[in-house]
Amino acid sequence: MIEITSISNNIVKETTKLHIKKYRNEYIIVEGKKAVDGAMEADLKIQHIFSANKDLLKNYENFKTYLTNEKVMEKISTTESPASILAVVKKPKNDIEGFKKFKKIALLDNIKDAGNLGTIIRSASAFNIEGIMLYGECTDEFSPKTIRSAAGNIFKIPIIHCTTEQLQEFKKTHKMIATVVNSPNDIQNFDSTEPFIIMFGSEADGLCSELLTFCNISYTIPMKKNVESLNLAVSAGIVLYEIFKHQ
Amino acid sequence: MIEITSISNNIVKETTKLHIKKYRNEYIIVEGKKAVDGAMEADLKIQHIFSANKDLLKNYENFKTYLTNEKVMEKISTTESPASILAVVKKPKNDIEGFKKFKKIALLDNIKDAGNLGTIIRSASAFNIEGIMLYGECTDEFSPKTIRSAAGNIFKIPIIHCTTEQLQEFKKTHKMIATVVNSPNDIQNFDSTEPFIIMFGSEADGLCSELLTFCNISYTIPMKKNVESLNLAVSAGIVLYEIFKHQ
Repeated sequence: MIEITSISNNIVKETTKLHIKKYRNEYIIVEGKKAVDGAMEADLKIQHIFSANKDLLKNYENFKTYLTNEKVMEKISTTESPASILAVVKKPKNDIEGFKKFKKIALLDNIKDAGNLGTIIRSASAFNIEGIMLYGECTDEFSPKTIRSAAGNIFKIPIIHCTTEQLQEFKKTHKMIATVVNSPNDIQNFDSTEPFIIMFGSEADGLCSELLTFCNISYTIPMKKNVESLNLAVSAGIVLYEIFKHQ
Repeated sequence: MIEITSISNNIVKETTKLHIKKYRNEYIIVEGKKAVDGAMEADLKIQHIFSANKDLLKNYENFKTYLTNEKVMEKISTTESPASILAVVKKPKNDIEGFKKFKKIALLDNIKDAGNLGTIIRSASAFNIEGIMLYGECTDEFSPKTIRSAAGNIFKIPIIHCTTEQLQEFKKTHKMIATVVNSPNDIQNFDSTEPFIIMFGSEADGLCSELLTFCNISYTIPMKKNVESLNLAVSAGIVLYEIFKHQ
């Protein structure tokens, strides 16, 4: 356990850089006990662990731990009230090949809101989805806000970015399913005997036309007439819940 | 249509005050066409309407409209990119007596997150809930963030604050239903033949013990083992969806 009390310390400076996306190519910031423990369970390389609480750090003796103070925690934290513990963790690297064995995949198209992305990762984990594909221009899945919204689930489910060409390959083995506002098919009647990729569009634009042309079938959530739509994370939650029930 | 080009204008100053909760006793800020039109449909008194777009303002000729510029819109807006239109609207006043005729009520206990509150209001509207009760120390239901998250639904559903004593009265006529993480009752088996109040606890603490003692029955959402919970707005969305399906 090394003590750091100055915010000018080099390790503090390097860690604070990770607040900005362009510095998160290799390492990311993970805040809060649940997320740090999640990174360990996922066997990710833990570079540093910081806390102002000596007793808490004792649980992490096998790692490089730094006993800090409130000022340092405030500096390296991405939130106004810093979590009790913060780690620098090697970014997980997932491979599209590994996804081929998955039967239940969720795809998110052009998702811009970090909170929504984290919340959907959390729901996907609760409802037994095996992998998440990101398509188009999505927000960073390892931004502090996404990790926070995933509430400890960020490392429980593999996430990859995928291209149109890769999806063309998956279409040979997986049923491609669109979720849209208007479909004659009620999500209650979801049929999951084949491996599938269930697709969710962005809140602003829905699924892009490129993805819609891929799909074998679409589903919708029944709701009261004249209500335009649900929040994206809520509708994804309901759809993933229905799919889970049908397993 | 009156022109306002200076951010020192008194009406601009008064409107900007409404960003802060303590000034929102009588009037609130409503941003974006969908929400402004929602306030009109709900027959709320519209005090002022601001826009930098003359053509847009022409649709609101019966109201006190102000043609502004970008600088003024930025000043009065609560977001970084101002909406095209902003109105000052008289806060809706709802009465607990009016709730007695409702058969489907949702109650939120100590909800702190404005985004979650707005998202739940949006889902409640989609799934035909007739009224929302707020219990304990909840975030302001008319904060700009809640209104934004409700996506045009904020005025479609009456919202009131309620006390323990009032709930005791409702218990005579309404079934009190708790949603909890661990319950033997699967929400799929929800039974809605009687009028009910369905209760959701805060994300941090769940339902408070005071409310739990009120309840006639509890339900839970089935999910994968070892996943602690869903986001509050997602779980409320799933529960309200199941209730809607059972109508």
